[in-house]
Amino acid sequence: MGLDVAVPAGELTGALVDFASVSGSEGPLADAVEAALVGLPGLTVDRDGDAVVARTSLGRPTRVVLAGHLDTVPIADNVPSRREGDRLYGCGTSDMKSGVAVMLHLAATVAAESLVHDLTWVFYDNEEVDASRNGLRRLAERHRDWLEGDLAVLMEPTGGEIEAGCQGTLRVIATLPGRRAHSARSWLGDNAIHRAGDLLTRLAAYQPRTVEIDGCAYREGLSAVRISGGVAGNVIPDRCEVTINFRFAPDRDVAGALAHVQEVLAGYELELTDSSGGALPGLSAPAAAAFVTATGRQPRAKYGWTDVARFAALGIPALNYGPGDPNLAHTRDEYVELPLVEEAERVLRAYLTTRS
Amino acid sequence: MGLDVAVPAGELTGALVDFASVSGSEGPLADAVEAALVGLPGLTVDRDGDAVVARTSLGRPTRVVLAGHLDTVPIADNVPSRREGDRLYGCGTSDMKSGVAVMLHLAATVAAESLVHDLTWVFYDNEEVDASRNGLRRLAERHRDWLEGDLAVLMEPTGGEIEAGCQGTLRVIATLPGRRAHSARSWLGDNAIHRAGDLLTRLAAYQPRTVEIDGCAYREGLSAVRISGGVAGNVIPDRCEVTINFRFAPDRDVAGALAHVQEVLAGYELELTDSSGGALPGLSAPAAAAFVTATGRQPRAKYGWTDVARFAALGIPALNYGPGDPNLAHTRDEYVELPLVEEAERVLRAYLTTRS
Repeated sequence: MGLDVAVPAGELTGALVDFASVSGSEGPLADAVEAALVGLPGLTVDRDGDAVVARTSLGRPTRVVLAGHLDTVPIADNVPSRREGDRLYGCGTSDMKSGVAVMLHLAATVAAESLVHDLTWVFYDNEEVDASRNGLRRLAERHRDWLEGDLAVLMEPTGGEIEAGCQGTLRVIATLPGRRAHSARSWLGDNAIHRAGDLLTRLAAYQPRTVEIDGCAYREGLSAVRISGGVAGNVIPDRCEVTINFRFAPDRDVAGALAHVQEVLAGYELELTDSSGGALPGLSAPAAAAFVTATGRQPRAKYGWTDVARFAALGIPALNYGPGDPNLAHTRDEYVELPLVEEAERVLRAYLTTRS
Repeated sequence: MGLDVAVPAGELTGALVDFASVSGSEGPLADAVEAALVGLPGLTVDRDGDAVVARTSLGRPTRVVLAGHLDTVPIADNVPSRREGDRLYGCGTSDMKSGVAVMLHLAATVAAESLVHDLTWVFYDNEEVDASRNGLRRLAERHRDWLEGDLAVLMEPTGGEIEAGCQGTLRVIATLPGRRAHSARSWLGDNAIHRAGDLLTRLAAYQPRTVEIDGCAYREGLSAVRISGGVAGNVIPDRCEVTINFRFAPDRDVAGALAHVQEVLAGYELELTDSSGGALPGLSAPAAAAFVTATGRQPRAKYGWTDVARFAALGIPALNYGPGDPNLAHTRDEYVELPLVEEAERVLRAYLTTRS
């Protein structure tokens, strides 16, 4: 099945949505994207699994990486796409086939001679599932050279805003011990669930920081996300587990963030279960500053963790910018505002072709 | 399969253990018990399901009910029974086939003319499972007249002590509400698990009463026995549930106990899920006082809930007295001390045949 990437980005978004590609089944779409890119002049096209990377080699002083994932969350009766006025409905319209459509359409329609940066187009698989399967992570491990650049723009949904850097995240499990007893003789036991009272009270009273970096305000949060304990209705429980998620500003690294949690929850046995460092906004880098100027928008902090952190880990300033609405991602009623798709195309075209 | 109820109670205990009768499969044992009782002089024998009730009708001024359940928890590689020195090992040795053996042996060997009380022997099914299946409950509903008496002795394991009355128990579920949000934007949500901090702190600080009634000290307890909450590792949870068990002294009824819990946990949404009223020790009743004298033991409070409360609900003073060890009930290594079986037989024989 072929893709006509020369059609307007809004129309192309619809074609991409209709080309279903739930995580793990991106192969046919990756084939179509690869075929479309191979047919364009002046691009070196590489492939790894279901990730496709295309690069210009114009000898420009800077290289900009534009990246987007091809996969979507499972379809929820929302394919094929459906247009109502200025809105296009369907699975992946916001997250993030509209961004992918803008990328493909620009790759096909911006003349090489007008480019002020060399470009790298990255289309990858398995962003919506477990991090171990993430296609961008795999590319960074196997083909780091394919991802080199001075700025990375990840076209995740931001509603046309620039969302810079991202928070880090870590999870710990606090295990509260106790001693079992029959609940009719509760004084013979030691209630592990009761012990959670102090821990939860500390979390409820916790005052998170708000940190401003490059004009972006990062607001932290320390939250219990799961609790479980109990043996039976007549037993004093000997164990209670609380899972706590710390979302931290990118001025802390994982080790510093963990040390902070250990300080707040001093006295509790904590086990780190997973972590991902954040990404500094990096807006002081010249290529990033020029991008901000091109959009004419005030950058803001990205709160969720996104793959921009993978670029940041490679030393590449990275930001999120895309036409989709982050609040509609993964919803049954997902849609994208077509004027925002056109705006993203216009903004990026201007940025890629205007000498700063 | 016949039962020889004339053999000593210790030996009869072994025969009863070897006659497996896990809850729900008591039929053959109930048949054997019924056959043995029908063969004895002067007893009216009634049957309902797998419960067997035998009564004397001697015109004595008082009637004593002796009751025991025929069923056991599931076998755990501990049938047939095995004797080691003074101990008899096996499923149900303590809970409560040793008590049943004492009952059957006394029924067979105490001459009617020596009895100072009329007697009712109650053998019932399904005590170790859900209360809705309990055989004594069924008898109380269908054949209340079969259970009439001035004192009930339930031969549950007490290690040869008199455990009088029993605590009541009730369970409530406290539901803590909240509002979901992505944990990267935790301030947009309302964390239901954090709200449990205050509730659990109240439970941890709670000072339970100890109430003395008829010389027995009833110590209460208010305990969280289960907690659960959480949606996903990156979501502020909108619901947390805490199950709380209140074990209360028999000077409170269920309504009073619930009102107390509502007062301690004022401000929380509580749902009563199950309750069983306690039983006053009733040791001031003449038949009970005589029993205490016969044992020569100081009565103590029963902490767990037992079927004595079913007799108490019928207005019959009731106490627990049996040769088994309550701490061994339901264990793989369950055993009974054979000297305690002989002592129980001796004590009861004296009580039943001695004019007070």
